[in-house]
Amino acid sequence: MKRVIAGPNAVTEILGAAPGSVIMVCLAEGLLPTTATRIQDLARRRQVAVDVLPREQLDRLAKGLTHQGVVALTGDYPYADLGTVLRDLADAPEALMVVLDQVQDPGNLGSIARSAHALGASGMIITRNRSAPVTPAAVRGSAGATELLRIARVTNLARTVEELQGAGFRVLGAEAAAAVPVDRVDWHGRVALVLGGEARGLRRLTRDKCDALFSIPLERGFDSLGVAAAAAICLFEAARVRRITLPRP
Amino acid sequence: MKRVIAGPNAVTEILGAAPGSVIMVCLAEGLLPTTATRIQDLARRRQVAVDVLPREQLDRLAKGLTHQGVVALTGDYPYADLGTVLRDLADAPEALMVVLDQVQDPGNLGSIARSAHALGASGMIITRNRSAPVTPAAVRGSAGATELLRIARVTNLARTVEELQGAGFRVLGAEAAAAVPVDRVDWHGRVALVLGGEARGLRRLTRDKCDALFSIPLERGFDSLGVAAAAAICLFEAARVRRITLPRP
Repeated sequence: MKRVIAGPNAVTEILGAAPGSVIMVCLAEGLLPTTATRIQDLARRRQVAVDVLPREQLDRLAKGLTHQGVVALTGDYPYADLGTVLRDLADAPEALMVVLDQVQDPGNLGSIARSAHALGASGMIITRNRSAPVTPAAVRGSAGATELLRIARVTNLARTVEELQGAGFRVLGAEAAAAVPVDRVDWHGRVALVLGGEARGLRRLTRDKCDALFSIPLERGFDSLGVAAAAAICLFEAARVRRITLPRP
Repeated sequence: MKRVIAGPNAVTEILGAAPGSVIMVCLAEGLLPTTATRIQDLARRRQVAVDVLPREQLDRLAKGLTHQGVVALTGDYPYADLGTVLRDLADAPEALMVVLDQVQDPGNLGSIARSAHALGASGMIITRNRSAPVTPAAVRGSAGATELLRIARVTNLARTVEELQGAGFRVLGAEAAAAVPVDRVDWHGRVALVLGGEARGLRRLTRDKCDALFSIPLERGFDSLGVAAAAAICLFEAARVRRITLPRP
């Protein structure tokens, strides 16, 4: 089945014929109220989530299809192939990969994908085991960012870290006990940001493979920041540092 | 009903007698495995969520009660009185309040409370109308931070902004269209950070009352960052700037 269904007629048709296959419906801001109301009512009756997004975002989701402000996402998530992603990034001097070591909550996965895409990451890597896959909940939580960010799944994360290092990435792991604060990290060049799962953080083998570890300074010894919040902070810091000192063309 | 139930016996008792009143059970890291397993099994049978937290965090949650590594949270959320919070902060030169203008998802509310507490905020303000109240889902999503951060509910947010200004707070609103980036904001002194709801951002009346507006620079025109991610970034920025240039005693 196609991943993206575009246009009011096609989306109406699939909401009628196979609503269970629809992950979410996206409507453009400023869509004709009659169309918007009609599709929203239909989606509600079919228990399909609807999100209203800027029109440019629908343009990107629709990937060239004529959408007239209405897009539906369906079917299984099309994971990217890591080798292909790395080849495509071979000449990108500031490529930034996000690597998740067993993040298990689909809401967190979606939120991290959203922040990663919005803050300029080049792609994301998750593990096959003990990770939330890109479920419909993750797609919805990402506000569609999962469709725009390339996400690859790997079996052996330690080996993937070596592969990233072989491709010229410095691999930086977030670890609560690390002494270096996130705002003293050198985020320039090709960087992979590694974040651990909700319960246990980075696994030992992952941590040992990292080129450097850093932490987010917290107040009050309340040693607890959600992984999605931590991801947002790291990605913002990387973007901030790169923005300040990037050579201007 | 008491808000905090402390100790394995008292928690076992309430999980048996009135599990529906229990919002969550918190166990200390390093708790005796026999006790941990027994309480976890009981909680699972009673469909009560269990979280494992550092022991110091349980000490704070238990507020002086002897807990032996086991705490349960029950009952309605004890909202703080804004007047009392502001009086208590009257002499705090770096007080930081978080103000949410109709954040509607309890998961976002919990996540923001967690980041706010972990990153040093002094308190939080939410609206009575069209906001998620501090539901059990918000308490769980906050990993207990809702119990440590004072959260007040107000009816008229515009008037509350004036009240904050009267108490010497500079009120800074996050607004996607604002020209000033978050890392050029002066976060020193008494500051209130205002964030809008998921769908519509800041309401016009709220926005007009702010002393200044700022935005989080995004890449690719993907004009979409979750409010919890945005909150984490703003709070981190405030803490970072304050840490760097705070006079050292």
